[in-house]
Formats: sequence, C-alpha cells, structure tokens
Amino acid sequence: MVRARSEERRTDILRAALEVIAERGYRGATLGAVAERVGLTQQGLLHYFPTKEALLVGVLEERDRWDTSGGRDREGWRLDLLESLVEYNAMRPGIVQTFSALLGESVTDGHPAREFFTERYAQVRVNMADILRAEFGERLPGGLTPERAAPLLTAVMDGLQYQWLLDPSAVDMPGAFRDFLRLLGGDGTR
Amino acid sequence: MVRARSEERRTDILRAALEVIAERGYRGATLGAVAERVGLTQQGLLHYFPTKEALLVGVLEERDRWDTSGGRDREGWRLDLLESLVEYNAMRPGIVQTFSALLGESVTDGHPAREFFTERYAQVRVNMADILRAEFGERLPGGLTPERAAPLLTAVMDGLQYQWLLDPSAVDMPGAFRDFLRLLGGDGTR
Repeated sequence: MVRARSEERRTDILRAALEVIAERGYRGATLGAVAERVGLTQQGLLHYFPTKEALLVGVLEERDRWDTSGGRDREGWRLDLLESLVEYNAMRPGIVQTFSALLGESVTDGHPAREFFTERYAQVRVNMADILRAEFGERLPGGLTPERAAPLLTAVMDGLQYQWLLDPSAVDMPGAFRDFLRLLGGDGTR
Repeated sequence: MVRARSEERRTDILRAALEVIAERGYRGATLGAVAERVGLTQQGLLHYFPTKEALLVGVLEERDRWDTSGGRDREGWRLDLLESLVEYNAMRPGIVQTFSALLGESVTDGHPAREFFTERYAQVRVNMADILRAEFGERLPGGLTPERAAPLLTAVMDGLQYQWLLDPSAVDMPGAFRDFLRLLGGDGTR
C-alpha cells in the first residue's frame, strides 16, 4: 500500500516535470517549480529525485515507456508506427527539446545521463534493425544489412530533431524522415 | 599594428581553448585554464571573450574556418572531402564532443549559441545540396532532389556523432557515413 502510493506519487512528479519542461524548456524547469505543481516541498521532491538530472532521466525513461506502448503493437515496432512517432514529436517541441538538450550534455565526461543514453542507443539500434528486417528483409539498397542501416535510421531521427528545433520553418521533420524511408525502400513510391 | 597583435592574441586564445577542451572536455574547460595556458590573467581573457559561451562559439567558428579551408578545393566542397572530414573527426573526439554538447545546449530557449547554430545549419544545408548536385545531378534515389537530401546528409553526420561519442566501440562512424553515401549513390558500388 505504501509502495503503491509512493509509485503513484512518482508518476505524478514525472507528469508535472514533463508539463513544466514543455512550458519553460529544459533550462527554465526548476525542481522548485515541479515541486509546487505537484504540491510538495522541494525537500519532499528530493526524496523521490535527488537531483534535477535524476528527475530528467526519469522523464526520459517515462517518455520511452509511453512511446513504446503507443508505438508498437503486439508484434513489436513497425516502420509506419515509427513514422507516426516522428509526426507526433513534431507536435511536442518541449519534450523533443528536453531530449535533445540532455543527449547533447550526456556526451560530456561523467554526465549523469551518459549511461542512460549509451544503453538506450544500444537497445534502439537493435529495435531499428528488427523493424528494418521486418519491412525490407535482409538486403537493403547499397548492399546494406538491417544492422548496418540501423545506426543511420537512428541518426536521421536525432539529427533532424536538432535542425527542426533550431528552425522549424526551414525543416519539415516528418517529410524529411519519410524521404529517408524512401531511400531505404529503394524506390520512389515506397 | 595594435589590431594585428590583438588578432594574433585572439587566435592564440582560440588555439589554447581548443587544446584545453580536447584534454578536459567541454565541462572541464574553464576560462581560468585557458587564460593560464595563453599567459593571460582571467581578467585579460575576458577582454577578448566576455563569457565561456562566447569563447566556445569562437572555437566553433574557428573550427568551421579550418574545416572549410582543408575540406574544399577551388571548386568548393566535394563528397569525398566530406568523407575525409568524417574520418578526421573520428580522430578528434574532444572537438566533436564540444560541438555536440554545444549543439545540444543551443536548442534550449535563449542560449547564446542558438543564433550561431541556426545560421550555420541554413548555410550547411545549402552547401550539402551543392555537393550532392555536383556528385549525383538533379535526381537522387527515392525521387529526392539535392535540396531534399541535404537535411538528411546533415542529420546523419550529427546523429552518428552522438552515437559514436557515447559508445565508440559500438559505432564505426566513418563506415556508417560511407554506408549512407552508398544509399544516396543508388547502388552497392558507388
């Protein structure tokens, strides 16, 4: 019972953190603002998440859980669901900004989110290879295998997010992603 | 004469900053360490670069100048020179880390490097389209034009850097980049 309530409170905090981040961006989001929204003192919040980084990693893990439940069906991920995920991301710059800013920080030495991202990308590349194999089989254009195309698919998604966040009017993120899928499909029609 | 000496000192500072960043990473690089290396007081350094961000943007601009002079010939950029640039980057994780961390920060609201990156990417996409047109003509696989493939080429370069920085043993950055060029070339041989 105590554990259930504690879990519930944790979820409330993550939801509040996501809202605050969406409104104010990653820099503007303070532990104080999150605590206030969820009706805790800052000290009370620190009991659940001891640092701002820990809270942000929590938000990212929660985001991955949501996206995973929304973006896959019983047979796992599919390429068209990935396409929908990119369209969905184009409607929520706040969380994409948070993710991209944290990814950028995470490559610096000793950053608290580094391990999260390193493990996440290893898993993402495996998932992407599965998706590509299911859609295109063993041989992709250019003689690529699903495993060799997987880091490219991942890189395109991340790289487009930066260009789009910097200048949304100059970059059509979902359109560019579909263009890349056309390259992988090996023809002009897909 | 005074201006020439001031320019020279500015170049010395940027070179020292690049060395310090390569050794300690972006977070570890302090204005004090850069000042010490170049034989200035921190106050003296602030005369040339008033903030750490300004110094880092200076380093990035200088990096673009070097890469531009090394990576293009009289006719401008070429795709094989871009391939060499990615290979070169794979040998200097320090500067790639600096670039990637700053790009990540720059997408947050009001960041001092935001304008630099927004303008840089607009220019990079134009350059990439020129390179693609020179190499492949007007029609790329998937019915893409050089202008539509340009943000993808840019995204792949950036996105691969993050994956490679997080786990160099898991991602062969130059190899993956060549794979992407194979996709753009429309066949297995290029």
